[in-house]
Amino acid sequence: MHATPAAPYVHDQVDKVVASAAEAVADVPDGATLLLGGFGVIQGWAASCILALAARAPRALTVVANTPGVGPLSPQVLAERGLVRKLVASFAVYPTQPAPMGDGIKAGRIALELVPQGTLVERVRAGGAGLAAVYTPTGVGTDAARGKEVREIDGRRFVLERAIRGDVAIVRAHRADRHGNLTYRGGSRNFNPTFATAARTTIAEVDEIVEPGGLDPETIVTPGIFVDRVVRTEHPLAPATLLALSRRFGKQWDLEARERAVGPRGIPPDLMARKVARLLRRGEYVNLGTGLPTLVSDHLEAEQAITLHSENGMLGFGPLAGEAATDIHRYNASGQLVTGLPGESFTDSAEAFAMARSGRVTTIVLGGFQVSARGDLANWRVPSTGVGGIGGAMDLAAGAGRVVVMMFHLTRDGRAKLVPACTYPLTAERCVTTVVTDLCVVDVDADGFVLRELAPGVGVDDVRAVTEAPLRVASDVREMEL
Amino acid sequence: MHATPAAPYVHDQVDKVVASAAEAVADVPDGATLLLGGFGVIQGWAASCILALAARAPRALTVVANTPGVGPLSPQVLAERGLVRKLVASFAVYPTQPAPMGDGIKAGRIALELVPQGTLVERVRAGGAGLAAVYTPTGVGTDAARGKEVREIDGRRFVLERAIRGDVAIVRAHRADRHGNLTYRGGSRNFNPTFATAARTTIAEVDEIVEPGGLDPETIVTPGIFVDRVVRTEHPLAPATLLALSRRFGKQWDLEARERAVGPRGIPPDLMARKVARLLRRGEYVNLGTGLPTLVSDHLEAEQAITLHSENGMLGFGPLAGEAATDIHRYNASGQLVTGLPGESFTDSAEAFAMARSGRVTTIVLGGFQVSARGDLANWRVPSTGVGGIGGAMDLAAGAGRVVVMMFHLTRDGRAKLVPACTYPLTAERCVTTVVTDLCVVDVDADGFVLRELAPGVGVDDVRAVTEAPLRVASDVREMEL
Repeated sequence: MHATPAAPYVHDQVDKVVASAAEAVADVPDGATLLLGGFGVIQGWAASCILALAARAPRALTVVANTPGVGPLSPQVLAERGLVRKLVASFAVYPTQPAPMGDGIKAGRIALELVPQGTLVERVRAGGAGLAAVYTPTGVGTDAARGKEVREIDGRRFVLERAIRGDVAIVRAHRADRHGNLTYRGGSRNFNPTFATAARTTIAEVDEIVEPGGLDPETIVTPGIFVDRVVRTEHPLAPATLLALSRRFGKQWDLEARERAVGPRGIPPDLMARKVARLLRRGEYVNLGTGLPTLVSDHLEAEQAITLHSENGMLGFGPLAGEAATDIHRYNASGQLVTGLPGESFTDSAEAFAMARSGRVTTIVLGGFQVSARGDLANWRVPSTGVGGIGGAMDLAAGAGRVVVMMFHLTRDGRAKLVPACTYPLTAERCVTTVVTDLCVVDVDADGFVLRELAPGVGVDDVRAVTEAPLRVASDVREMEL
Repeated sequence: MHATPAAPYVHDQVDKVVASAAEAVADVPDGATLLLGGFGVIQGWAASCILALAARAPRALTVVANTPGVGPLSPQVLAERGLVRKLVASFAVYPTQPAPMGDGIKAGRIALELVPQGTLVERVRAGGAGLAAVYTPTGVGTDAARGKEVREIDGRRFVLERAIRGDVAIVRAHRADRHGNLTYRGGSRNFNPTFATAARTTIAEVDEIVEPGGLDPETIVTPGIFVDRVVRTEHPLAPATLLALSRRFGKQWDLEARERAVGPRGIPPDLMARKVARLLRRGEYVNLGTGLPTLVSDHLEAEQAITLHSENGMLGFGPLAGEAATDIHRYNASGQLVTGLPGESFTDSAEAFAMARSGRVTTIVLGGFQVSARGDLANWRVPSTGVGGIGGAMDLAAGAGRVVVMMFHLTRDGRAKLVPACTYPLTAERCVTTVVTDLCVVDVDADGFVLRELAPGVGVDDVRAVTEAPLRVASDVREMEL
C-alpha cells in the first residue's frame, strides 16, 4: 500500500516541522480568531501550544472551541491571562466547574456566542469547504435560532447558519509526517480534523513525527494540504496522571448523574436505565446523553446488538470502563472513559452529527428538565442558574431518530416536569416520543401524554398527582417490565 | 489499537452480509433514485451490483453519479436496458465515447441534470448530513446557477444548492466487516463514502469481508452505521484485463490531449507543459485539469516540492505511470494511472473539493476554449457539439487559488481563443490570472490581457494578429524561459 519513491519527483523537500510550541504560535497576532480542537475534557487539547500562546499573550482573542475545557492545560488558561474577548462554543459554564472562562462571561469581560455542538462543527466545516452557509434543522424554534433566518424547505423548517473560519487553528493529533499528514486516536479526533481545514494557518501538535511514507496513505485523516506547521511535544502531564485525572473527571459526572437527580419515591437510576435499555429495538444505533442516560450502557444485553454513538466520533464502544480504564482516548461525549469493542470505528464530530441529523442514529436518550404535552423538550438551561450549555442535544433531537427522555418525574424541589408547555428554553420542538421516569413510562402522541407503564407500587393517581399536563391512561397500562 | 472483547457486550450479533449481488439489490423498486459511487473510469464501479440490477430491471430509475461511466460494467448498462429515466451527473456525454446514456439523453428518453462535480458531491454530503441546502461559490454567473437563488454574503455571490438523498446507494469499497465498516483503496474512494451516507438503504460491494475487529477502527472510512448490506464479489474482469483497460483508457486521454489540440505554429504541448511547470512556486498544491494540463506532471522538478491534487481524492501523487502502471486504484481525475509518492494521502471527493474551494489548492491549471479580457473562462461546452460535461472545473475555478489556463492560441479552425467576451458557456467569471499558449504567456489584470513572454521566433505582432481582444505588452516582455 505504501508508495515507493519515484525519481525525479521525490519531494522530500516539503518540511512543515517546527522546533517548539513557542515557535509554532510565535506570530499569532492580537485580535486573532483561534479554532482550538478538542472536546472539552482534560485530555486531548493541544496543551503545549495553548500554554505557549498564554505565555506569548496576544490580546483580544476570539476562541472557537466545543468547550473552554477543564483545567490549566485547556483554553481556560487563555481566559485566566485575560487574553480572551469572545468565546464561540457549545458549552461555556460548567455548573460544578468554576473556571476563568465562565467567570469572564458572567462578569461581562468575555462575550459569548453559544452554538449547538453539531452546528458549531458544521459551520466550521462549511468554512473549510469554501461554503458561505448551510440550512440545518438544528435549533428551529429555540434560542439558538434567535435572530437567524428560518426557511421552510420541502415542508420542514431550517435555520441558516453561517460559515466560520479562523486565523489560526490549533489541533491535537497523534502522528504526523513532515508533509503535515495527520492521524488521531479514538475520541480525541472529535473537532480537530474539521478545525484543521478552516484557518489561514493550521498548527498541529502531535506525539510523534515520521518520515513521508511512514503513514499508510489510506489511514491519513487530515491531509497535509490543510496543515502549515507540525510540532512534536511531550504532554505536560505524565500518562498515569492524565489517566487518573480522566478517570476522576468521568466518575464525577457519573456521581452527579446519580446524586443530582434524586427522585421522590420511584425506582432508582439504575432501574430507570434498565427500563430504557429494554425499550431499545434489536440492532439500533443509540446515543446516550449526559447525566442519567449514560447509565444505560451498563444494562444492554449482547443479543440486543446495540451500537452506541457518541458526538466525539466514537461508534460501537462498550460500557463505562471505570477504574479499569487504560485508554484515555476512548471516552464518550460526557468525558467518561469507556471500553472498546470489536467492530467499533472512530470518525470526527462533523460525521458523528451527520449520522444523527440524517436519522441513522435511531434512538436518542436524553435527560430532561421539562417535556411538554406536544413533545417539546427543555434540557439545556434553567433560566435561574445563568449561562447554560447547549452541547449536542439540539442536533441529536433534530435528527430523524426517536427521542426517549430519561428523567425523574419531579424536580428536586417538587415541581412537575411533564407540563402542558415548557417554560424553560427549548432544546427542540415536538421531538419526544417516550419519557421514562422513576414513576412510569409515558408516550407522547398527537394528543399529548399517554401512561403506558407504572413503577412497582405506583398507581395511576400517584402519577396524575405529580403530572401537570393531562395524562391519558393506555387501555393496557401495566407494571414496568424491568 | 484493536479492542479486546468485553463481555457481556460483545455484539457479534450484528451481521449485514448478504450472499449475492442479486440478493443485495432484490428490493430496489421501480422509480428509485440510485446513488452510484465511482468516478467514471473503468475500474471502481460496484459492477456486480449494477449488473444484478440490470438483470432485475426495475424501471424509471434516477441515477445520481459523477458520470455514467465507460463500458458494460458501469451505469451505462442500466441505460442500455432502458431502465433510466433521469441522470444527475457532472459528465453525461463523452465526446469520443458514444454510449447508451448519452444516446438516451440526445434522443430525449433520459432527462439530464448536469451538476458541477464538487457541487454534486456536496449536495449529497448535505443530504447525508441532514442539511437542506448550502450556499456555494461554484457556478455563479454560469449555466449551473440558472434558475437557482444567488445570494450575496459578505460581498461575494453564492448559489443555493439543494441537498440530494437517494433511495438506494450502491458503493464500491475494498474491505468490510460484518458491521458494515468499510475501507477503500486510493482514488477509488472518490464519491463512495459520501454517497454511502445519503440513502435509505446503502449497499456496499467489497473485495473482502473480515470479522468485527479485523479492521483497525482508526482506519475505517465509512462507519457501519451508514451501511445496510455488504456483499463480497469477484470483479467480472480479471485484474490483468482491468489494468490493461485502465492503461488504454488513460493513454487515450493522453493522445487526445496532444492530438485534438493542434496549434498553428507555436511550441509543442510538452514545451507548453514545461512552461506551466516553471510558473509554479515552490511548495504549491496544484490541480492539473483534463487534457493538455495533465502533461505538466512530467515536467515538475523535485526541488519545486509541488504536491499534486486530484478531484477523486488523490493528493501528492507522482507522474503518469504509463505502461509501467501496476495499481489500478491510483489514477488522476482524467482517469490516467499515476505513480505513488511518499507523503501521499487519499480522501474522498467531498474533501478534495473542500481543499479547492477554500483556497488550499493554490494553483489550478485548466484547459480552455475561450478566455475573456476580464478573466472569464469557458472550457466545458462548445454549443455546436451538443451536451457537454461540467466536471470539476467550475469548483476548482471558484476557489481562492490562482487559475492558469493552458491552451493553444487558436482553435483548430483558426479562431481566436483570447476574446473580448466569451461566447461559449462560462466555467467561471473573472478567475483566470495567466494563460500559457503555444505562442506566448499572457497575464490577465484589471485592465485585460498583458503579454509577458513570447515563444521562440514569435513576435508581438504575430500574437496580436491572432488575439481578438486588446493586448497590452509588458515593458519587460521577453522570450519564454523553458
